[in-house]
Amino acid sequence: MKKEKNNKPSKELPLGFIDRQEKELLIRDFIISNIKEVMIKYGFQYLETPSFEYSDSIGKFLPDKERPDEGVFSFKDEKKWLSLRYDLTAPLARYVAKNFLEIPKPFKRYQLGTVWRNEKPGPGRFREFLQFDADFVGTKSLQADAELCIMISEILTNCGLDKADYVIKISSRKITDQLFEKIGIENIQQKLTTLRALDKIERLGWNNVKQLLSDGRKDKSGDYTKGANLSSENIEYIEKELKKKNPETADLKEIFKIFKDYNFNNYEFDPSIIRGLEYYTGVIFEVNLKFDVKNNKGQVIQFGSIGGGGRYDNLVNNFGNYDAPSTGISIGLDRFVYALMQKKEFKIKQSKPVVICVFDKKSMTEYINLQSLLRDAGISVEIYPGENKLKKQMEYANKIKSPAVILYGADEIKSGKPTIRDLKSGNEKSIKIKELINEIKKII
Amino acid sequence: MKKEKNNKPSKELPLGFIDRQEKELLIRDFIISNIKEVMIKYGFQYLETPSFEYSDSIGKFLPDKERPDEGVFSFKDEKKWLSLRYDLTAPLARYVAKNFLEIPKPFKRYQLGTVWRNEKPGPGRFREFLQFDADFVGTKSLQADAELCIMISEILTNCGLDKADYVIKISSRKITDQLFEKIGIENIQQKLTTLRALDKIERLGWNNVKQLLSDGRKDKSGDYTKGANLSSENIEYIEKELKKKNPETADLKEIFKIFKDYNFNNYEFDPSIIRGLEYYTGVIFEVNLKFDVKNNKGQVIQFGSIGGGGRYDNLVNNFGNYDAPSTGISIGLDRFVYALMQKKEFKIKQSKPVVICVFDKKSMTEYINLQSLLRDAGISVEIYPGENKLKKQMEYANKIKSPAVILYGADEIKSGKPTIRDLKSGNEKSIKIKELINEIKKII
Repeated sequence: MKKEKNNKPSKELPLGFIDRQEKELLIRDFIISNIKEVMIKYGFQYLETPSFEYSDSIGKFLPDKERPDEGVFSFKDEKKWLSLRYDLTAPLARYVAKNFLEIPKPFKRYQLGTVWRNEKPGPGRFREFLQFDADFVGTKSLQADAELCIMISEILTNCGLDKADYVIKISSRKITDQLFEKIGIENIQQKLTTLRALDKIERLGWNNVKQLLSDGRKDKSGDYTKGANLSSENIEYIEKELKKKNPETADLKEIFKIFKDYNFNNYEFDPSIIRGLEYYTGVIFEVNLKFDVKNNKGQVIQFGSIGGGGRYDNLVNNFGNYDAPSTGISIGLDRFVYALMQKKEFKIKQSKPVVICVFDKKSMTEYINLQSLLRDAGISVEIYPGENKLKKQMEYANKIKSPAVILYGADEIKSGKPTIRDLKSGNEKSIKIKELINEIKKII
Repeated sequence: MKKEKNNKPSKELPLGFIDRQEKELLIRDFIISNIKEVMIKYGFQYLETPSFEYSDSIGKFLPDKERPDEGVFSFKDEKKWLSLRYDLTAPLARYVAKNFLEIPKPFKRYQLGTVWRNEKPGPGRFREFLQFDADFVGTKSLQADAELCIMISEILTNCGLDKADYVIKISSRKITDQLFEKIGIENIQQKLTTLRALDKIERLGWNNVKQLLSDGRKDKSGDYTKGANLSSENIEYIEKELKKKNPETADLKEIFKIFKDYNFNNYEFDPSIIRGLEYYTGVIFEVNLKFDVKNNKGQVIQFGSIGGGGRYDNLVNNFGNYDAPSTGISIGLDRFVYALMQKKEFKIKQSKPVVICVFDKKSMTEYINLQSLLRDAGISVEIYPGENKLKKQMEYANKIKSPAVILYGADEIKSGKPTIRDLKSGNEKSIKIKELINEIKKII
């Protein structure tokens, strides 16, 4: 044994970051291929912006402008601050402003990409996420907002979900705008605090949210959240309005009519849908999964939203005066993958290689010929890649969940008949080489 | 017009980062799907490590340990430094050390992922790259090194390249090791400077490299690179040895024998192949493209390598005492995409939507029915997503390179016969709805 070094680097990952295994990645690929297929059918253009932007280009919604590293990962580069994008919408607004003369109007684009949040890490709290976004830029037509809901519904269906597995919850920022006008909230900070409180109705329930709307709330850990300081009269009024079952805004009435034309009915009007962000100006919606999902303690949980979106008519105007009313959707793919992995009925095929055992390095030419024959037939196969004895080779084949091993020792080579051992049943069979492909296809 | 704000954020991207358009992304997807198919056939496991690691976990090869932000993007997180990965090999070594008891041995994994370099940006010098890596961990078998070359060759073939389009250049670090021993270089820094100089033979030519091997070299910009301070006698000796045409090391002789068993001959022994990195211990190789590629000035250039790799038997030992001799390959996908985009014979299909024009919002139900009919047949189609007049709608359809528009005004609706206009030929045709799908399939 070598001496242990004193200053070995860490083998651990920073909190909030994880390694992802094959099964998860294959489910993700499956979802992404469904997304791309639907995106083509719906006529969206594929775009990719880089992971870094100038902090000021995407920094509009950061909590504290004096410290650009609050909430995002930022780096000082010569004179300017760079940040890793924290969503795909802010970079889209920058892209549209930069390329306003060249892009088609309206501009329909989709993007798949990682986003980063420099939040205090904790168990189950990640600091990087894979997102899928699709947006219409440069149209006020509610047809666009409607298509986003229908399109994500088609993606979920193609991923194997049925109508009972999900619902699109929909509302409009105009409802809260009208509320705020009625009760006379004009201060932008008070509006935001109110919206953030209302955004927590599903998670915390109305009683806790009412504390957040009045003088604040202390949670179980003792952390105190400041309140919106509304009067109890106004709070009662808000509660009453948001519990209504029928939409009263023109945009929602129109979108429901469009849904009807599409024969789309897997949605639900829910005025308690708020979406935290400041920039929404009209229709807002959330994509909610309804099937059973277990947390890592094995308990069935209410999984809730995998994403959502809505209309934001003024975002691009942060860069100047552009006519670019927009609407978009954003889906958290890691959350969707997690949910699908847990869905009882959902299966994904992992192809594992058949292993050709190495009896004698001198027969490598024969092993290679066998391997080439099978690979040419599209079969996943490998010659045992190490240098150990047969027992270790069998352990390896079991470890990688290989469906079968091929035993091709001196005797088998002489007779031209390798032995296949099915690793599930344990059955062995001596097979002529010209029948090998068919026999293996029966096993895998 | 609204008043212009004074403090508008930047619309530009930081130097070294770019937006990527559909054509490039589709070629990248095409390459990636070929990679994944071959990876399954060759029995590699799909893995993904996160973009961030503790700086000390991947920092072994950073130029200056006191400043972890030299060459990589790093930032301080509570007490420790985090860095964005600068390659996929260092995170693999960390992963193997962390999971050594659980992983199969040998461990074959592949990964696709972005890597970042915090280098001084300049025109054409990027700071993020998409890489594909495949590695064998825990085997000394040269079969593994050989398979990497054959596997990348199969990927390139599946991407449409033929034998004349590329070559695998191969050498062994043992050649330089023996050279260094012979001429008595023991100092690690001098070894590295010598290797870095030799790594530039293809780009700078022998005359310039000889300056780098002696007392240094000033380039055209006036920048001075320190030399390795070798004697002119030793430099002559190195040149003579590296110009030899036949391998004298045992590892290369064996790998060429394995290539023969695979019927693989699209390689070239080239002892001037060095690969800059310190950690290689055996066979090294480079994947070189040979077809014509133009730079952004339209000049045909020698494109050179899209990646390479080799054997690194000691890397995982940075984390302690592990028996994990390894070999791997790393391909720069953005470079490969760039080259394929420029290849005369290479074509990729971009599906653009047929546009249904909006004559009257009151007929939206009819437009939606038509759109649903076509989408259900798998056709890419959209109702014009904006709110402009017909002329702008036609401009839009041309701008997005739509193959055809569908005109479905009041008269057409009444007669049940929409008009298709082929936007390439300009031809118009009035079509019964039940024949629409077939007619459109002829055009797209």
